[in-house]
Amino acid sequence: MRRTICTGSGTFAALLVASSLGAQTASNASATVDLERRFDASIVPAEMGGWMKTMAAEPNHVGSAHNKANAERVLAQFKSWGWDAQIETFEVLYPTPISESFELVGPTSFKATLTEAPIPGDASSARIKDELPAYVAYQSDGDVTAPLVYVNYGMQEDYKTLERLGVSVQGKIVIARYGAGWRGLKPKLAQDHGAVGCVIYSDPRDDGYSTEDAYPKGPARPANGFQRGSVADMTLYPGDPLTPGIGATANAERLKVSDAPTVLKIPVLPISSGDAQHFLAALDGRVVPPAWRGSLPITYHVGGGDARAHLAVKSEWGLKTIYNVVATMRGSVYPDQWILRGNHHDGWVFGASDPMSGHIAMMSEAKAIGALASQGWRPKRTLVYLSWDAEEPMLLGSTEWAETHEGELKQKGLVYINSDGNGRGFLNVEGSHSLQHMVNSVAADVNDPETGVSVGARLRARLQVAGTAPGAAEEAREKAKIALDPARDLPIGALGSGSDYSSFLQHLGLAALNVSFGGEGRVGGVYHSAYDTYEHYSRFGDPGFVYAGALAKTVGRMVLRMAEADVPLERYGDFADTVSRYLDEVKKLADTKRDAADAQAKMLAGGAYHLADDPTKTSGAPTPLKSVPHFNLAPLENAIDRLKKSARAYDTALSVNGASQSAQIKSALVELTRQTEETLTPEAGLPGRTWYKNLIYAPGRFTGYDAKTLPGVREAVEEERWDDVDRYAALTASALNAYADRLDEGVRLMDPSRASRSRN
Amino acid sequence: MRRTICTGSGTFAALLVASSLGAQTASNASATVDLERRFDASIVPAEMGGWMKTMAAEPNHVGSAHNKANAERVLAQFKSWGWDAQIETFEVLYPTPISESFELVGPTSFKATLTEAPIPGDASSARIKDELPAYVAYQSDGDVTAPLVYVNYGMQEDYKTLERLGVSVQGKIVIARYGAGWRGLKPKLAQDHGAVGCVIYSDPRDDGYSTEDAYPKGPARPANGFQRGSVADMTLYPGDPLTPGIGATANAERLKVSDAPTVLKIPVLPISSGDAQHFLAALDGRVVPPAWRGSLPITYHVGGGDARAHLAVKSEWGLKTIYNVVATMRGSVYPDQWILRGNHHDGWVFGASDPMSGHIAMMSEAKAIGALASQGWRPKRTLVYLSWDAEEPMLLGSTEWAETHEGELKQKGLVYINSDGNGRGFLNVEGSHSLQHMVNSVAADVNDPETGVSVGARLRARLQVAGTAPGAAEEAREKAKIALDPARDLPIGALGSGSDYSSFLQHLGLAALNVSFGGEGRVGGVYHSAYDTYEHYSRFGDPGFVYAGALAKTVGRMVLRMAEADVPLERYGDFADTVSRYLDEVKKLADTKRDAADAQAKMLAGGAYHLADDPTKTSGAPTPLKSVPHFNLAPLENAIDRLKKSARAYDTALSVNGASQSAQIKSALVELTRQTEETLTPEAGLPGRTWYKNLIYAPGRFTGYDAKTLPGVREAVEEERWDDVDRYAALTASALNAYADRLDEGVRLMDPSRASRSRN
Repeated sequence: MRRTICTGSGTFAALLVASSLGAQTASNASATVDLERRFDASIVPAEMGGWMKTMAAEPNHVGSAHNKANAERVLAQFKSWGWDAQIETFEVLYPTPISESFELVGPTSFKATLTEAPIPGDASSARIKDELPAYVAYQSDGDVTAPLVYVNYGMQEDYKTLERLGVSVQGKIVIARYGAGWRGLKPKLAQDHGAVGCVIYSDPRDDGYSTEDAYPKGPARPANGFQRGSVADMTLYPGDPLTPGIGATANAERLKVSDAPTVLKIPVLPISSGDAQHFLAALDGRVVPPAWRGSLPITYHVGGGDARAHLAVKSEWGLKTIYNVVATMRGSVYPDQWILRGNHHDGWVFGASDPMSGHIAMMSEAKAIGALASQGWRPKRTLVYLSWDAEEPMLLGSTEWAETHEGELKQKGLVYINSDGNGRGFLNVEGSHSLQHMVNSVAADVNDPETGVSVGARLRARLQVAGTAPGAAEEAREKAKIALDPARDLPIGALGSGSDYSSFLQHLGLAALNVSFGGEGRVGGVYHSAYDTYEHYSRFGDPGFVYAGALAKTVGRMVLRMAEADVPLERYGDFADTVSRYLDEVKKLADTKRDAADAQAKMLAGGAYHLADDPTKTSGAPTPLKSVPHFNLAPLENAIDRLKKSARAYDTALSVNGASQSAQIKSALVELTRQTEETLTPEAGLPGRTWYKNLIYAPGRFTGYDAKTLPGVREAVEEERWDDVDRYAALTASALNAYADRLDEGVRLMDPSRASRSRN
Repeated sequence: MRRTICTGSGTFAALLVASSLGAQTASNASATVDLERRFDASIVPAEMGGWMKTMAAEPNHVGSAHNKANAERVLAQFKSWGWDAQIETFEVLYPTPISESFELVGPTSFKATLTEAPIPGDASSARIKDELPAYVAYQSDGDVTAPLVYVNYGMQEDYKTLERLGVSVQGKIVIARYGAGWRGLKPKLAQDHGAVGCVIYSDPRDDGYSTEDAYPKGPARPANGFQRGSVADMTLYPGDPLTPGIGATANAERLKVSDAPTVLKIPVLPISSGDAQHFLAALDGRVVPPAWRGSLPITYHVGGGDARAHLAVKSEWGLKTIYNVVATMRGSVYPDQWILRGNHHDGWVFGASDPMSGHIAMMSEAKAIGALASQGWRPKRTLVYLSWDAEEPMLLGSTEWAETHEGELKQKGLVYINSDGNGRGFLNVEGSHSLQHMVNSVAADVNDPETGVSVGARLRARLQVAGTAPGAAEEAREKAKIALDPARDLPIGALGSGSDYSSFLQHLGLAALNVSFGGEGRVGGVYHSAYDTYEHYSRFGDPGFVYAGALAKTVGRMVLRMAEADVPLERYGDFADTVSRYLDEVKKLADTKRDAADAQAKMLAGGAYHLADDPTKTSGAPTPLKSVPHFNLAPLENAIDRLKKSARAYDTALSVNGASQSAQIKSALVELTRQTEETLTPEAGLPGRTWYKNLIYAPGRFTGYDAKTLPGVREAVEEERWDDVDRYAALTASALNAYADRLDEGVRLMDPSRASRSRN
């Protein structure tokens, strides 16, 4: 999973149940309350803790015996709860580490320990048999010796800084700290700049003793802890590097490893802060800029001179079998309308927090739904519960499954609801904005275990407090403004990537949500390390597993309401307003870039960069920014204006006339919600990475997991691809017009005469 | 001196000499150019370096033999250069340290070393005989043992945070890090909150190895370096604590030490980061908030529990003699119009950077002016050069002299120009905004030693680059906007306190400027330590002393132009626009506070602070903000509107008709500039600190050295003294109306008919 350090980045409101069920009738509402009460009765935190203890008892990476055993265990449990369940396997490329080393070879010598020693009091951390070493997936084998350069977080801006400092990484090994962007961008950008190797370490400033007491005294990353992870270039496509766009079934046509564009070409290794200090202290050259300083007790230098290192990494590159568990409960009324819900079960080591903390909630939901079924209840729509394998190496289980079943999923899938790591704290939901109001409604009906108010009310309080604190960022201030108005729903955030929703939302065009609690579960310090254990999690992540319960109740309600609703729960005004805000951001971005380019041109002409320089520590002038033209965003502006009107007409019609429609029309309206979302993923996809088809939500090319909204247009502005700006403004406008067409169709279904009026 | 870490916080433009001399005639302009060329010929950097080496050879604190010898040396030099010079002494309270200790007494033990050992390669640092120990001036004697609490920077906001964390400093010893506000506020606020002692240390994050390589490898503060300083409560008044408002002459009436309000009541000690680490590592209690983290390799805790410390400090509290050198060159035309120029000569230890780096420039000016005089030239106005003693303990030399000669200075003083520490880099000028254009004119005529362009052009480049960098603060962005327009003068900043201009600007009402170069002279790490040596300075501060030369040429031009100008060099439109901007800031402040109070009231009513809390790490709700009423700022708004008109009329009249006036009118106009500035310091002064009379510029009650503009009004808003807001809006309006009256009088002098028209 991706690591969410703090939550509150998107989400809800406190509304009464009656209003929360939208256009449902009163008797429906009462039935829902009763159903959810019975559902809740099966949610038992202590039982979930027991499941975690069992599932996180041994290392759970792809190919490990315990991970396969977990899949079989989950299969048996789903079956025992009355689900129609099976294991579906794929054959994927997965490099298993053979050897790795990193040493300083000059001017002094030091060999990195690369060892996460057992922690006193944590029995799990002593079970190191079969544990993956320091390692990242889909790097390249390699054995290089070269000067070492510190590149801060190793992001785009850092290379611009290095260029101005006159430091090249060509032919060198870079050492980058974790943070400020997705892990995999660090070696990719290093490789793009000519580096021959890349080491990533966890600086205590961001992730270690500077943040909290280190484990075992506190929850923070110990000096010898390191972060594993995937560096497959998921900005191109996730899943098996050898089978882009198709399922990695046994007989699938495969790329050669050397041709797989998402596999890096240089060796990469993650190391601990304790190891890193020896290398960083040996660097000479310029003292780093202030923003590059970490918290190790040294002066940070850029290096590139005498300090040389030797990096060697080797893996076994065969295909491995992965094990998805697929559990179905067939819908009694609309069997071909599917509600999908998933969480992965593989972990980098034990994986207590990531992924078991979310997985146990999903299991609890499945058990509770099974209990309802055993009492004679059946969902109206089909439920599909999915326990994914191989999420950690880059969403392989979910991606290969989604690609294999693409046709059926596009026909039947209404929504995919994901969870992953979970912990104490605040509700965080990101996803399709048509579901924002449904999310708020659910959040109003689940109690927060720590305070007793609803999880929505608690999140509202947090957004208020965070966004009115001195120095709050503009985005937080805007959210506080919304949160301070009790009449407004809390906003949900946009989805980028980093967990198993990606294929459904961005490739297939299903509505999707990702749900978690967090912000108080202090598990970031053991993320992807051998210390992410049951012992650590039950002490710091969610003592008593009460937030596992809250997650099960929250997602369970979403699943049940989507499965049972007579008429759609979507509200399209929320989507229209959100997209409108995204366009405002893009316009502001273009204006800001235009002003910056103009100012920079003046300064370059006047020699300002040279004159502002300290002659003893000179920097070159920056690379000239391209002059920014004015763009034709009119198609997009027109489409959004129309979308707002269509959405308002639809929401109003549904609210006024929805409940009185025939069963057939109601079913057609729900069917239409699927078709509506699908318009956002036209076949063309995004420039240079057509696997990603969603024109509203995508992981950023240079942010990784973090979302870029209106990505075709926004990234074209950011990356100075001017032609693409107009092209993607038009493409996105077409998609939104198609979206509005579907809404108009919905209005027509509910009231033919009214729809024809609203067209004029 | 105060420490200015980076410059560019205020200042100028590239204009032709002709225009830079305002209403001067062409022949006057050519005479000026010639005079300044001859002046420059006497500025010899190597000679200045020699003076520094001599003056910084031994410790130079108040009462030291070498400091007195320096005064005598300077006296002799002034005399040898043809000046009428004398030493003027005062008898001031100055506590000389006898003993000091700080030790951890539980749960472990450690005794602070409090020792700045000699540095290899720095011969000066080995001359420790007679050197002041770890010590701050005007703390109290004391011997206390108590629990230790870490209070971050020890500023107001930090105590609000502590209160919410449920940590009291009552009866405890606080340990604060240097930074974020003036040193003396730390023990004062600690004392106000009931602490019994205060220790201040230099965290490597702000001042040490995190910023640069430590001395001697680089310029940064070594782990055993500490910062001495004064903690006299200068927000009430500077100077001798026993003689507020009057000169500390031998027979002056004195307060008892115990009654002196600027002397603290608790013991205080500065310590090094190396010593501090032992104490901070021993603290328990809550982990600190992120903004409180330093760069020591520990987890920072708030403490207040088991960790206890023993602090003992003792001084000898007798009166000491201080030695100002006063050198005069009588004006040939206007002997009763004085141009004052000063720099102090005392230092905390050797004082190479602070104050000698500025003092040698002043000496060079005096020598160059002496050389002009020896060639037969005489200034039209009287020049008074002042080498101050006892600036470091809190501006004693200048304050006592200003108070002693208050009557004459108010009659004759036109301007006071100060310098203090100086170094490689960019021009930084702060002061009276009526002189902003004069400053820009001078900056256009002095060459930067490193780049060859004018120091004004170089500063303009820096403001452009700094204010267009990603993440630049709003103030920097505003300055860049100005700097990118070649037609606009660069802004100068406002003066707070921290050097010898304070009495002249804020108590007497003279126009004042403080001038330095800096931003590249990497001397911050030895500020007020025993490592502020000739060796350190000549290596890092200003190799070759070329910026001492630039400072002498810059201030020399200011002095000569002010001394020689036929008509005023002031431009009052700059002042009017600046004050108008200050009022906008105050209005925005009030609106922001009003919104914050309203939002907070909602959140308190809804229990948001409780709900947003992590129950395992609770914080109390904040102290309720007072509801903010609307204020009557109309008098001030009207006064500023009028001021803008009067200023424009004056500037225009001077520009059009100034040169053609009679000698008598010209002299009267210059005389009027003094009267104009004086209107800003009505007798009433600021609330609770009436020594400070300037209603436009003051050191902040809770910022210390940093300026608060429109202080009567602004601080009343900040401190929730609502009655004072309206009261000081009216008082400040009166002062500005009186200011505008003087400008109207100037217009009348130049063109009686025009002035009467502009009144209507």
